[in-house]
Amino acid sequence: MENRKYQIGFIGLGIMGKPMVKNLIKAGHQPIVFNRSPAPVDELVGEGARRGTSAKNVAEQSDIVITMLPDTPDVESVVLGADGIIEGARPGLLLIDMSTISPVATREIASLVRAKNVRILDAPVSGGDKGAVSGTLSIMVGGEKRDFEEARPIFEAMGKTIVHCGDIGSGQIVKACNQIVVAVVIEAVSEALTLGSAAGVAPEVIVEVLSGGLAQTRVMDLRGPTMIRHNFEPGFKAKLHLKDLKIILGTADKYGVKLPVTNIVEKMFTDLVKSGKGDLDHSALLTVIEEMSGSFGSKIKAHETKG
Amino acid sequence: MENRKYQIGFIGLGIMGKPMVKNLIKAGHQPIVFNRSPAPVDELVGEGARRGTSAKNVAEQSDIVITMLPDTPDVESVVLGADGIIEGARPGLLLIDMSTISPVATREIASLVRAKNVRILDAPVSGGDKGAVSGTLSIMVGGEKRDFEEARPIFEAMGKTIVHCGDIGSGQIVKACNQIVVAVVIEAVSEALTLGSAAGVAPEVIVEVLSGGLAQTRVMDLRGPTMIRHNFEPGFKAKLHLKDLKIILGTADKYGVKLPVTNIVEKMFTDLVKSGKGDLDHSALLTVIEEMSGSFGSKIKAHETKG
Repeated sequence: MENRKYQIGFIGLGIMGKPMVKNLIKAGHQPIVFNRSPAPVDELVGEGARRGTSAKNVAEQSDIVITMLPDTPDVESVVLGADGIIEGARPGLLLIDMSTISPVATREIASLVRAKNVRILDAPVSGGDKGAVSGTLSIMVGGEKRDFEEARPIFEAMGKTIVHCGDIGSGQIVKACNQIVVAVVIEAVSEALTLGSAAGVAPEVIVEVLSGGLAQTRVMDLRGPTMIRHNFEPGFKAKLHLKDLKIILGTADKYGVKLPVTNIVEKMFTDLVKSGKGDLDHSALLTVIEEMSGSFGSKIKAHETKG
Repeated sequence: MENRKYQIGFIGLGIMGKPMVKNLIKAGHQPIVFNRSPAPVDELVGEGARRGTSAKNVAEQSDIVITMLPDTPDVESVVLGADGIIEGARPGLLLIDMSTISPVATREIASLVRAKNVRILDAPVSGGDKGAVSGTLSIMVGGEKRDFEEARPIFEAMGKTIVHCGDIGSGQIVKACNQIVVAVVIEAVSEALTLGSAAGVAPEVIVEVLSGGLAQTRVMDLRGPTMIRHNFEPGFKAKLHLKDLKIILGTADKYGVKLPVTNIVEKMFTDLVKSGKGDLDHSALLTVIEEMSGSFGSKIKAHETKG
C-alpha cells in the first residue's frame, strides 16, 4: 500500500518515536526520518523510511513534520534552533509536536512558527511504548480544528483514541491533567495499602473491596495486584512521571493555580528517583510511603504469600 | 413472610438505620428497636417493629443486636455505658456494629464485650442513604468467620456486596482505606479540573479524555459532570467525610503509618466545613482548590454553558 498524499517527516526516534514511524510505514507512508544518534535512522531506512540529515533538511522536504522528543528544551532546539525545522519549513507546513512538554512553551513556540506561516498542532500521547508498538496510543490534540481533521488519518495510523481538546496547547494541558490524576491516585492507593497492611488486613481484600465501589480506579485495577507483590517492572517509569510533574507545577504557577497535593506527590517522586528507583514503574511510589512508615513492604508480601 | 430464627435488636434509627430496619422487616424479621429520639421508633413500630426502652432492654430480648450510630463515643456509650447493651446481653449474644468508627476503638470494645461472652462483628457500610433504602449497601465485615456466616442472611437483607475482611476491626480498616482513596481522588480530580479550566480547556473534554485511560476513576465517572456544573447536592456529605478522615488519621497514628496526602486533604475538608459547606456533597472540595487559585468556578461554569 502506498500513501503519497503527504510527505511526512519524523524527528526523534526513541522508544516511542521508532515504533510510531514503523506504523506510519505500515500505513503506506515513506517518512523522512532524523535522530541525533544514527542507529534508529539506519534501522528505519532498512524498513522503507528515507534518511534526513538534519531537522532543517527534513522540513525542507516535508508537508508534515512530526516531533517526538524527550523534553521542552529538545523541542525548542529542534524547532527553533540552528538547522532547525523553522529554517527549512515551507509556508503552510504542518508541525505536529507529539512530545510531552510544557503547554506554556508550546504556546510560545506556536506564536513563533505561525509568524513564519507554519501551522502547528500539539499532540502528546498516553499508552507508553506498548501503545506505540501496537498503534493503540491515546492522542490528545490541541490546535486549529481543520488542521486536526487534515492530520486525523496520520494519527489513526499511530493511535486509537484521538481527541481534539481545543486550541493550541490544549493537548498538553489535558495530558497534564491526566498525569496529575494518575500520580495522585497511585499515592492514594499506596496510603490505603500501607495503612491496611499495617493494621493487619490482607491487601488483596482491600483491592477487592475498593474496586467494587466509589473508590474504584483503573490504577488500582491494573496496578494493585502488582503493587502488592512489589513487582515494579515498568510500565511507565517513575523518572518520566517526575518530569511530567515538574512540567505541571510550572504550568500551574504560570496560570496561578494551586495544586497542594500534586506539589507533595512531586516531592515524593523526587525522593523515589533520588533513591535510585527512577527506572521502576511509577507505582513504586508505594515504597516511599512504606519507608516513611517504617517499611511495611515485607508485611504486604507476607500477606500475599498466605493467599 | 416471617423470619423467627433470630430475634434482632436494632439501635440507632437515623438516616441510615431507619431504612435498614425497614429492609429487615421486609425480610420477615420483627426487630426490637431503640433510638434516643422517639419519632423513628413510633414510625417503625407502626410498620411491624417492636419497641425497646433502652439499649439494655433491647439486648435482654435479642439474639443479635445491630448498632448504627454516628461516631465512636456513641457506640462506646450504647455498648458499654449505663443501661447499655453489655448490661442486658445474654452470653452468646452477637453484637454487630455497623457504624463507621475507629478500628482501634472497635478492637478495644471487642476485648471488653468478649470478656462477657458477647460475640462481636464490625460491619461498616458504604452506599449512603440511597443504598440503605434500596438494600444495596456494601458491607465490610470484621470478626470471626463463623459469626460472619451466621449473620450473612441478615446482611443480605440490607446489602448487596458483603465481604468478610478479616478479624475484628478489619471492616473498619477497609472502610478507612476506601475513604482515603475516595477523598484523595476527589482532590486529584479537583486539581485537574481547576488547572485545565484556568488554562482554557473545556472541563468536559478533560472528563472525557481522562475517563478513557489510566486516569479513569469512578469518582470522576459519577461526579465529574456534576462537579463541572457546581452541583454539590449530596450524595455523601462533606462533614461526614471529614469525620471519617479524622478517624483515619487517628488510626494511622496508632499504627505508625504516615499518610502525607490524607493529612492535607483532611485540612482541606476542615476548611470546606468551616466555610459552611459541610452539608454539601464531598465533591464540593473542588471549591477549595478553586478559591485557593482565585476562584475559577465561574470559568468552569462558563465553559459548561457553551457545550
